[in-house]
Amino acid sequence: MLKEAIYHRPTNNFAYAYDEDTLHITLRTKKEDVESVSLIYGDPYEWENDHCQYKMKTMRKTGSTSLFDYWFMEVNPDFHRMRYGFQCSNGEECLIYTERGFYDIPPADTAFYFCFPYLNKADVFTAPNWVKDTVWYQIFPERFANGDTSNDPEGTLPWDSANPSISNFFGGDFQGMMDNLNYLEDLGITGIYLTPIFKAYSNHKYDTIDYMEIDPQFGDKETFRQFVQECHHRGIRVMLDAVFNHSGYYYKPFQDVLENQENSRYKDWFHLWDFPVKPEPKPNYDTFAFGGSMPKLNTENPDVKNYLLNVARYWIEEFDIDGWRLDVANEVDHAFWREFRQVVKEVKPDAYILGEIWHDSMPWLQGDQFDAVMNYPFTNAAIEYFAKGQMSAREFADSLTEVLHMYPKNVNEVAFNLLDSHDTPRILTLSNGEEARARLLFLFQLSFIGSPCIYYGDEIGMTGGQDPGCRACMEWDETKQNQDLFHFVRELIHLRKTNPVFGNGSEFRVLEANNEENYIIYEKYQANRRLVFVLNNSNLPIQVNLHSHLPLANTKEWQFGEERKITKSLKDLTKLKVEALSFRILEQ
Amino acid sequence: MLKEAIYHRPTNNFAYAYDEDTLHITLRTKKEDVESVSLIYGDPYEWENDHCQYKMKTMRKTGSTSLFDYWFMEVNPDFHRMRYGFQCSNGEECLIYTERGFYDIPPADTAFYFCFPYLNKADVFTAPNWVKDTVWYQIFPERFANGDTSNDPEGTLPWDSANPSISNFFGGDFQGMMDNLNYLEDLGITGIYLTPIFKAYSNHKYDTIDYMEIDPQFGDKETFRQFVQECHHRGIRVMLDAVFNHSGYYYKPFQDVLENQENSRYKDWFHLWDFPVKPEPKPNYDTFAFGGSMPKLNTENPDVKNYLLNVARYWIEEFDIDGWRLDVANEVDHAFWREFRQVVKEVKPDAYILGEIWHDSMPWLQGDQFDAVMNYPFTNAAIEYFAKGQMSAREFADSLTEVLHMYPKNVNEVAFNLLDSHDTPRILTLSNGEEARARLLFLFQLSFIGSPCIYYGDEIGMTGGQDPGCRACMEWDETKQNQDLFHFVRELIHLRKTNPVFGNGSEFRVLEANNEENYIIYEKYQANRRLVFVLNNSNLPIQVNLHSHLPLANTKEWQFGEERKITKSLKDLTKLKVEALSFRILEQ
Repeated sequence: MLKEAIYHRPTNNFAYAYDEDTLHITLRTKKEDVESVSLIYGDPYEWENDHCQYKMKTMRKTGSTSLFDYWFMEVNPDFHRMRYGFQCSNGEECLIYTERGFYDIPPADTAFYFCFPYLNKADVFTAPNWVKDTVWYQIFPERFANGDTSNDPEGTLPWDSANPSISNFFGGDFQGMMDNLNYLEDLGITGIYLTPIFKAYSNHKYDTIDYMEIDPQFGDKETFRQFVQECHHRGIRVMLDAVFNHSGYYYKPFQDVLENQENSRYKDWFHLWDFPVKPEPKPNYDTFAFGGSMPKLNTENPDVKNYLLNVARYWIEEFDIDGWRLDVANEVDHAFWREFRQVVKEVKPDAYILGEIWHDSMPWLQGDQFDAVMNYPFTNAAIEYFAKGQMSAREFADSLTEVLHMYPKNVNEVAFNLLDSHDTPRILTLSNGEEARARLLFLFQLSFIGSPCIYYGDEIGMTGGQDPGCRACMEWDETKQNQDLFHFVRELIHLRKTNPVFGNGSEFRVLEANNEENYIIYEKYQANRRLVFVLNNSNLPIQVNLHSHLPLANTKEWQFGEERKITKSLKDLTKLKVEALSFRILEQ
Repeated sequence: MLKEAIYHRPTNNFAYAYDEDTLHITLRTKKEDVESVSLIYGDPYEWENDHCQYKMKTMRKTGSTSLFDYWFMEVNPDFHRMRYGFQCSNGEECLIYTERGFYDIPPADTAFYFCFPYLNKADVFTAPNWVKDTVWYQIFPERFANGDTSNDPEGTLPWDSANPSISNFFGGDFQGMMDNLNYLEDLGITGIYLTPIFKAYSNHKYDTIDYMEIDPQFGDKETFRQFVQECHHRGIRVMLDAVFNHSGYYYKPFQDVLENQENSRYKDWFHLWDFPVKPEPKPNYDTFAFGGSMPKLNTENPDVKNYLLNVARYWIEEFDIDGWRLDVANEVDHAFWREFRQVVKEVKPDAYILGEIWHDSMPWLQGDQFDAVMNYPFTNAAIEYFAKGQMSAREFADSLTEVLHMYPKNVNEVAFNLLDSHDTPRILTLSNGEEARARLLFLFQLSFIGSPCIYYGDEIGMTGGQDPGCRACMEWDETKQNQDLFHFVRELIHLRKTNPVFGNGSEFRVLEANNEENYIIYEKYQANRRLVFVLNNSNLPIQVNLHSHLPLANTKEWQFGEERKITKSLKDLTKLKVEALSFRILEQ
């Protein structure tokens, strides 16, 4: 057995409290190197009294990548505490793996074992339950709908009369969103994520001028309050975008610094290197990236902290918003986010805290900071495989297994699974205009573990490249909307909402990933129900044999197109044909 | 190259801020599998503008175990942020290792790389600086010295007139400690760790009755205040023991629960399962281990939290203590310890917070909770090797390498390195009475990275088995003290205090570990100074060849016995003789 590949550390995704009574334990071994793994476990204090009081149970293999196998077990320790080790066996060898290394037989002394000393309720990662059942819709407010021309900024162009640029305006606003809530309700989404709405300079509003004011081009606080109420009335939650890493150039405190320099009362609100402070030619202060117009806020300064925490509190208390998406969340200190969480959960215990982080985010997902991050590892895999065809089926399967094993299960269930956003090209554009690929993407996204988010307009086939291209005006002319796609997405959302096994109420596992014919078969399963998905990602039809995955008896097929699932019985599972860039879903 | 063995994740000991400008990066590879590792790194935002802006630098191998090699690099990123990957090479292969896996050439897109998004000062692990230079002395107050017989509890036995039992009393108190501060000052220690001093039932006082009162058998608050002042006057810090996981049976709130049951205002102060609450035959409430007399406190209850945080604050504010040692720290919720840290550091920013944890403690050492833990992995290795002779030289060397690589460097520098305590047999007893082994243990402990602690009486050769055996009365009769040993320990402490290279001012590295002849050679090195330690752990003399480790020119030897180091020049390094269970120290 390859000892060097065997890994466990009692933290992060490898050992965590799933809920106040349940521990999840994971072990990693070299792929196909170990035949079975058993967890050796017991109460730390019983063990010491009697060496034979530990228990042993077989762990379940939950996934494999090209390098590793992952083994999993759920335990409910009687007294909320546990010492444990692993017994790894194959035909030739049997190894005991503990915190102190490898042994031939289980060490008698508990002190050798891994330790989960106490499952304290306060430390359980707890995200809001509603997020698991939410389908999000991301709106870029300037471009969704112009419902009130009286608040249009100077120079506003007629709707959709030009390509989106970094500086043009089309007048989207809250009235426009409100006017189109029927459309969103019809689509079936249950959460709206709005990119920034606070007073700012640009059309994207990520350069805040005033965190306590709605940008006048979107309406006023009354309109916004009404919008949130109307959403809630329809069972739709609302999440706002908090840009707390940096302010905009025209943010008053920063303007005060530029004006008063050393004498500014705000000089400790930023990270200034020397005086005079100047943004050109190169800023002499910390910024987002190298942008002089985005001075980094000093979130360690108690005044700044109080100010921003107050912002976080205000919009929840006054407008009843349901979540905060945190821009550039990874560059702000953890200490700040810990306080942020306390403030937010105090005013609204089930508010959703979502961090924008593009890389491995484990340090922010320990229960003390965020509920979730934007799941870019998921995004990358889906886009590379289905849209761009630049990843093999096997690589795709590996990525999914890695995504699901890099975080705890309760983290994965609320991960914000996006396919694209205001920061990336749109999926249809990434798919080179092939609608069938977009369909596979939607199907995959909406049947995966997590909280899926649709970028406005994707559901009707809008296109657009890297920003600002992806920020075009929403197409409201029905003759220009792809109605078929809309109906397809609507049906998927409906299926997810009405079938827990389709959404977070089940486990996900890859059954087959075929590089030659370029397809993937995965299942979603729960106690007494199972769905098997066959996605053909190639330009040729395929014929797959599901015999080993599904028993013929009681297997039915889900059909699409009538806006309700219809199941029909199948005659033969050994030669299931799947058209090019198409899919089939079987239920057992 | 064995990909399965290559490990890095941007967190914990693998990537951390050493100080506000410095990142430490570590990579693990299979032992002797990789010839050189380079760090590929750059600013996340420069990289994207120009693919060639990343830098490459060779990493240093800092240690090897039987399975793995560890590679290290220190970086000061210009803008406090970094993306990075690793280039691993041997004669045949060259692999690039990133967050997304392995590649043949460095991926162009920064998004593939590991990310340390921002080095924020607030998140840097910062323990008090003084701890690095402190030599601790642990006192079990009931047994150090009886300086005031007027406070002796009923039934107090004459000093040292009986073996220590779980229930007898000998009258040790603060006056006794105060009377003997000259002795401690002469020994050279600079910190005193006192096991609990608060009002409690037993002789060990871990079963608190009142957290706000000194146990009357030790004196009163005035005596304690005087004691702390007198210590500070002599440059000695004082650390108290906080037993916050559980209270004692006679703690008023618990007594109130027993008396008033459902109607007790303290019923939410504990984790009660049902009513009536009863400690016998089995307690029906959460306890420490299974002890009905130690009910676990509900540290999630705001009232309990406030009470305990107030205790933490009170003894610092009122008596100026310098640190808290936290009993059974691993079973209390992380959320509580985060608040605890804030309260403690607010009243005394350089107070030391030390958790009692016997296993891997990484989750508590992220900067938001403890400054250190009791370093039992260090203890185990030292005892198994030097005292019991149950570990081979190679296993010992592996353990040291693991100890130093399992935590960040700034954590290791303040680790509480004990050899024994009130919870374990004494070192001389563990060494089967062989003083030479105790000497090797002291030398090793006092020359290792961390903050060493001597258990009272070990320095004069006291013996004692598992508690209560190890809790005997301090021997004050000089004719019964081992004066030679005392002088030896005093000299080591002096050397540590006067030579930064001997203590935390240098790096530690194993040079040789010989199983056959049972010796270990390690070095401590800093920029322009180096000490090489040869410790012979066998009962036979050995002859070692230091030629490859040291140049003959300028190599001097440290001599002991005159209470000052004397260096003498050496003629030949190829045949250095070291007596049985003895050592030599060479300086370059």
